[in-house]
Amino acid sequence: MRVAALNSFRLLPRRHSRLVFRAYATASRLTSPTSQDVAHFAGFLPESSIITSLEGSKFSKKAESADLEQYNADWMGKYMGKSRVVLRPKTTEDVSKIMKHCWERRIGVVPQGGNTGLVGGGVPVNDEVVLNLSAMNSVRSFDPVSGILVADAGCVLEVLSQEIAPHGYIMPVDLGAKGSCHIGGNVATNAGGLRLLRYGSLHGTVLGLEVVLPDGTIIDQLSTLRKDNTGYDLKQLFIGAEGTLGVITGVSILTPPMPQSTNNIVLALNSFESVLPIFKKTRTQLSEILSAFEYFDRNAYNLVVKHKLGKSLAEDEIGDASAFVLIETSGGNKEHDEAKLQDFLEEVMSDESLVKTGVLAQATEQFQQLWSLRECIPEAVSKEGKAYKYDISVPITTFEEVVHKTREQLKSKNLYKIPGGVKEVVGYGHIGDGNLHLNVVAEKYSPEVEGALEPFIYELVASHRGSISAEHGIGLMKAHALQYSKSKESIALMKRIKHLFDERGIMNPGKVLE
Amino acid sequence: MRVAALNSFRLLPRRHSRLVFRAYATASRLTSPTSQDVAHFAGFLPESSIITSLEGSKFSKKAESADLEQYNADWMGKYMGKSRVVLRPKTTEDVSKIMKHCWERRIGVVPQGGNTGLVGGGVPVNDEVVLNLSAMNSVRSFDPVSGILVADAGCVLEVLSQEIAPHGYIMPVDLGAKGSCHIGGNVATNAGGLRLLRYGSLHGTVLGLEVVLPDGTIIDQLSTLRKDNTGYDLKQLFIGAEGTLGVITGVSILTPPMPQSTNNIVLALNSFESVLPIFKKTRTQLSEILSAFEYFDRNAYNLVVKHKLGKSLAEDEIGDASAFVLIETSGGNKEHDEAKLQDFLEEVMSDESLVKTGVLAQATEQFQQLWSLRECIPEAVSKEGKAYKYDISVPITTFEEVVHKTREQLKSKNLYKIPGGVKEVVGYGHIGDGNLHLNVVAEKYSPEVEGALEPFIYELVASHRGSISAEHGIGLMKAHALQYSKSKESIALMKRIKHLFDERGIMNPGKVLE
Repeated sequence: MRVAALNSFRLLPRRHSRLVFRAYATASRLTSPTSQDVAHFAGFLPESSIITSLEGSKFSKKAESADLEQYNADWMGKYMGKSRVVLRPKTTEDVSKIMKHCWERRIGVVPQGGNTGLVGGGVPVNDEVVLNLSAMNSVRSFDPVSGILVADAGCVLEVLSQEIAPHGYIMPVDLGAKGSCHIGGNVATNAGGLRLLRYGSLHGTVLGLEVVLPDGTIIDQLSTLRKDNTGYDLKQLFIGAEGTLGVITGVSILTPPMPQSTNNIVLALNSFESVLPIFKKTRTQLSEILSAFEYFDRNAYNLVVKHKLGKSLAEDEIGDASAFVLIETSGGNKEHDEAKLQDFLEEVMSDESLVKTGVLAQATEQFQQLWSLRECIPEAVSKEGKAYKYDISVPITTFEEVVHKTREQLKSKNLYKIPGGVKEVVGYGHIGDGNLHLNVVAEKYSPEVEGALEPFIYELVASHRGSISAEHGIGLMKAHALQYSKSKESIALMKRIKHLFDERGIMNPGKVLE
Repeated sequence: MRVAALNSFRLLPRRHSRLVFRAYATASRLTSPTSQDVAHFAGFLPESSIITSLEGSKFSKKAESADLEQYNADWMGKYMGKSRVVLRPKTTEDVSKIMKHCWERRIGVVPQGGNTGLVGGGVPVNDEVVLNLSAMNSVRSFDPVSGILVADAGCVLEVLSQEIAPHGYIMPVDLGAKGSCHIGGNVATNAGGLRLLRYGSLHGTVLGLEVVLPDGTIIDQLSTLRKDNTGYDLKQLFIGAEGTLGVITGVSILTPPMPQSTNNIVLALNSFESVLPIFKKTRTQLSEILSAFEYFDRNAYNLVVKHKLGKSLAEDEIGDASAFVLIETSGGNKEHDEAKLQDFLEEVMSDESLVKTGVLAQATEQFQQLWSLRECIPEAVSKEGKAYKYDISVPITTFEEVVHKTREQLKSKNLYKIPGGVKEVVGYGHIGDGNLHLNVVAEKYSPEVEGALEPFIYELVASHRGSISAEHGIGLMKAHALQYSKSKESIALMKRIKHLFDERGIMNPGKVLE
């Protein structure tokens, strides 16, 4: 269902020149692939693995630009590359051969997973070769005792969930794009998502990686060991490097046992001030069964209801509630979990200064309904207009203030609620992780709005010593803004690491580091 | 109590020439520190921060070799350096100045924490400067809402536990040496320990690091953000690098809420074959409250009882039990947790083919007594003789077989239970993590025994695609054996990373990489 939803609001992309242009200089030192290069690839790849619009290739049917568009464009319609060669290899060895050739020829390569990214990290900035991993989609092994899964990078997250469910396990990462995103892309972007509070980051759950370096060298660290202290933990460098240091081709990951019992509630709060005391209470009373603590403001809620993506709560009960939280528990014993949740609810609901009303899911269907109020916000935002998405880490006490200040900034520039301007500013996110999603919905992407938002928001984040990218990554969108969250010494060291792995600069050029 | 225990079996070290010699060549390209260097350090360090036996320094009282011995020798008495300069700086800026000078002068530097390591990683191999972090021991901040702790690297683990306990938090890492080891050393060696099953590895819980690079550059990534995807996660490289890439001076770490209720049981098993079915049962029945699943064989149990470090279970009940497991639960609700454990116990105990007897701790004192049967094994081993400690990851089904094969190997070389030879071979470890501690107790360290054990054990581990170091690290002990667990491509890449950070080779020379 969520998959369909994701695709249903895929928009026809238009080129957004300013951002694309920003990285052009980086890419221009590279060689453009030619029909000779395609012929070389055709020497070891089957015809079905090559999509190209280049003249003179040996293929009988040349691809049209439209065939390439889904690989050149991100799903938000914000970034658009000009690649004319897309390769879809089936094996790690073929990935290695591709990289070796591109290394020698200095051709830029963009590793691409499910292309569900939000920062333009998975599409070309110019005419790089797109190395799409979707044909590498086999599960290599699963151990039902340890819960350790080894899979090709191109496996879709939701497919992996379905694969391990019969054994009583779940994936440690979960996100709205689960029906399209690849596990390789999740790892490359260090995806956070809805389960991070409970199962921790991929830096902890990924046990091993198989990676092809820019020069074609295959690094096999596809360990299935929970503990391995033999030298530098190289795989960590690729987690979150967004494909700029190498191509992840295989992932070994520790999957947690499936909870026997899952419950959720949505609370409509009198004000944002209620969030912190309620969060504190969950830490002690729900303790180890707490699996999500999500926040969304009234504007976000209104958008979901407006676009009929979530069932509204009883209007008379929520009244003028300005903030909502969704709390999920997952545990091993239904009776115990429900007792804990009941106790918690009674205590919280009895304090009228905190909560206006609360809804406890009584059945699977209701559980999904409550989740959609939170999970469908990105989709509602996309239906409403063009979204500027800021994914930031700031102290949780400042979530509302950051949204408010952003709205004031737009008002002061006379861009808020005017024709062609910004329609809405909404805030939602993961309280448990200190991660706010600040979305600015405009009628269209425009330099004026972007100019009002940046560097304003980055400076605001820096003033709180926060992160300008909590979980989406840097990609193309924020490569120029890294200094708001990292010191110059750190950035210098990153550049040296990039150079060590990729002195020719062919791996995902223009992304992460300018 | 554990602290005292650890110190009580600190042995007077003797030089173990073969191993020390192995790394000598690496270190010999370096400059030996002179009294001029000491004079330079005295320019910014107080007198109390410098311990040296070098002639001609400005200090009125020259240190004796004996004063330096505790910094040169590891606690097992297996490794012994010849450093004549120990520095104990109090600030990151002073660490930076020290490194800058040593970088310019090409003087080797050994970062040292609590010196509780087991692989010779924290002591010099030659006459490097020892950079002891024990004077950097302040808590920098603690946030009682998020549980995020920021501390100097030299803080003792147990002291940090005591610091955060009143706020209702615990450290995510726990190990026998907690009373002496430093948090910086824990991070530098990626310590595993007793809580890894529940709280995951330090790669997941460490949120930020402050590190001084070999050339003196300070990298401040002391983030207190749970999520931060802004570029390469550089801190990960230092976690487990054993001080070979830089000096960790500060640590930001996520601490979990203190469980409201903790219980444990010890089960005496008919045979090792019972371990796996019981482990599987805990995964479903104890699920999220399971916090430890530890194994020890009969020989390990016997040693603990022999040396009066643990209270023996009822002899008539355990009979000829050949294997034991300790299971710990930690949860948020005493009543619920005890009910879960009771159900589990009833089910397990009713199957006589699995379990001979079981003991459930009824009070805090008993809880500690049961834990000491497992926790005091290393101490019992040290009391029994000189220990060859192998800390390996292998499939849990092979734990007993690996111990058995090692014993057979020693028998075949006529080294088992002969005067001057091996007294005992014992196996224990963390079933939940697939981590076996294989200890060979000999009357004395000898080249014959070492020759029988290595590379035999490393090859055995490699045949199971295991790790020759699950949690202890590589240090000096296994630098020559890395290839049993890592491919040549991986080792080549590690060497390039080492060179990138430390092209002069001054950081902890001879460790990790030969």
